Amino acid sequence: MLRVGLIQMAVGSCKKTNLQNAVKLIKQASDQGAKLITLPECFNSPYGTQYFGEYAENIPGNSSSTIADAAKANNVHVIAGSIPEREGDKLFNTCCIFDNKGEMIDSHRKVHLFDIDIPGKITFKESEVLTAGNKGTVFELENGVKIGVGICYDIRFPELAWKYRQEGAKVLVYPGAFNMTTGPAHWAKLQIARALDNQCFVMTASPARDLEATYHAWGHSMAVNSWGEILCEADAAEEVLVVDLDLNSLEETRKNVPISTQRMPECY
Amino acid sequence: MLRVGLIQMAVGSCKKTNLQNAVKLIKQASDQGAKLITLPECFNSPYGTQYFGEYAENIPGNSSSTIADAAKANNVHVIAGSIPEREGDKLFNTCCIFDNKGEMIDSHRKVHLFDIDIPGKITFKESEVLTAGNKGTVFELENGVKIGVGICYDIRFPELAWKYRQEGAKVLVYPGAFNMTTGPAHWAKLQIARALDNQCFVMTASPARDLEATYHAWGHSMAVNSWGEILCEADAAEEVLVVDLDLNSLEETRKNVPISTQRMPECY
Repeated sequence: MLRVGLIQMAVGSCKKTNLQNAVKLIKQASDQGAKLITLPECFNSPYGTQYFGEYAENIPGNSSSTIADAAKANNVHVIAGSIPEREGDKLFNTCCIFDNKGEMIDSHRKVHLFDIDIPGKITFKESEVLTAGNKGTVFELENGVKIGVGICYDIRFPELAWKYRQEGAKVLVYPGAFNMTTGPAHWAKLQIARALDNQCFVMTASPARDLEATYHAWGHSMAVNSWGEILCEADAAEEVLVVDLDLNSLEETRKNVPISTQRMPECY
Repeated sequence: MLRVGLIQMAVGSCKKTNLQNAVKLIKQASDQGAKLITLPECFNSPYGTQYFGEYAENIPGNSSSTIADAAKANNVHVIAGSIPEREGDKLFNTCCIFDNKGEMIDSHRKVHLFDIDIPGKITFKESEVLTAGNKGTVFELENGVKIGVGICYDIRFPELAWKYRQEGAKVLVYPGAFNMTTGPAHWAKLQIARALDNQCFVMTASPARDLEATYHAWGHSMAVNSWGEILCEADAAEEVLVVDLDLNSLEETRKNVPISTQRMPECY
């Protein structure tokens, strides 16, 4: 059994407040027994290409150190959603991963940048300011459970999740800020798709919805089990979800419906 | 616009009756304007490993000729669900595809055999009697629209659908007989997964549920659009669904959310 915490956090324009809030909510999830805690995409900055440059930091930097300290103080692993990362003259959308001693054990730079154009609904082009990451990210907890990490739009690409599954992942985590168009249409369905196809747990953490912000996040952070069932789901407001992932149920799914050993690669 | 017919057909133990029923329902769908009609998996035989040998036929044979004639008589393309096919001493679960002149233009032998074991719920092992197909199947309508075909359990394997997408498929068709355990849990979710990941229409045709049969099919034949929305859905009983697939909406989805050109293969 792995108890996890999903932090659907209100993110505003004050970075300092955002970081304090993240630290507070990590403690709140930890107090409920969560051992692996996920922050949302863009937790130190409003989401939007116009903000990334202003809020960007080097890694390590103040934002990453703040979360590292919180991971250590609470003795929990933290998947630190994402922050705009500056490296030289490039910006990335980057998730830092801290172990329970506060060591950064891995990081994930969003591989698939969010470039979509649904006229009259949502047009967004991360690639105007961000550079894409060039690798997938799987890390390991102390108990050997492997976790694959993607950020938001990465969830639309089944190959990345399948690569994580082949590398032994049992949990797929996507901090993400879907919007009011693709959120209701696809957010849950994509998580269920990744869960069923890879027979993994899938969990997400979104910023809370802020209708005064320029970008309206869908919210609805959730966890899905390997049978494709939603275990818990937030609404739009700030909320900390804590839920137990029953790893035995995952082994049962994989044994009962053994799709991973039934592949027919010569036909693909 | 492509008008399609999904035939959720009551299948009994009398092959002759099954074939007559298939012919009748093809006409019924055609009378409503369907130009591409799909029969369910195992439409000439009860579904079950104990039946496949008895009901199996060569292709061409009586069952395939009967459907070929119906395709020609109604001037429609028919994806003939599946029948147990005999070739030498081997049996396959095979879908014949007929054009509107009654020519068999392609066929698909189920690639992924249905071998699952959910104790106390459903245990089934097609591989005890069937041989797996060794290729995927994409065929083309007169108007150039390409259709990818899988059978039932094939839907659990994203690679097959993605191969079809790469070969130009806009519609994925899975005649299938899910059961009372995996049906409610996964049938719709898998169709939505294939639709979203490949930005294709997905359609299925199941046998109607027969609680006096040894295998209880879930039914719920349906069509899903490229945005992941269910366009129509049967319940458990025999029913002919006729629905228009708006191919322009598919092009719009692919243009607005261009995941097919945003792949990052160096990361997989």
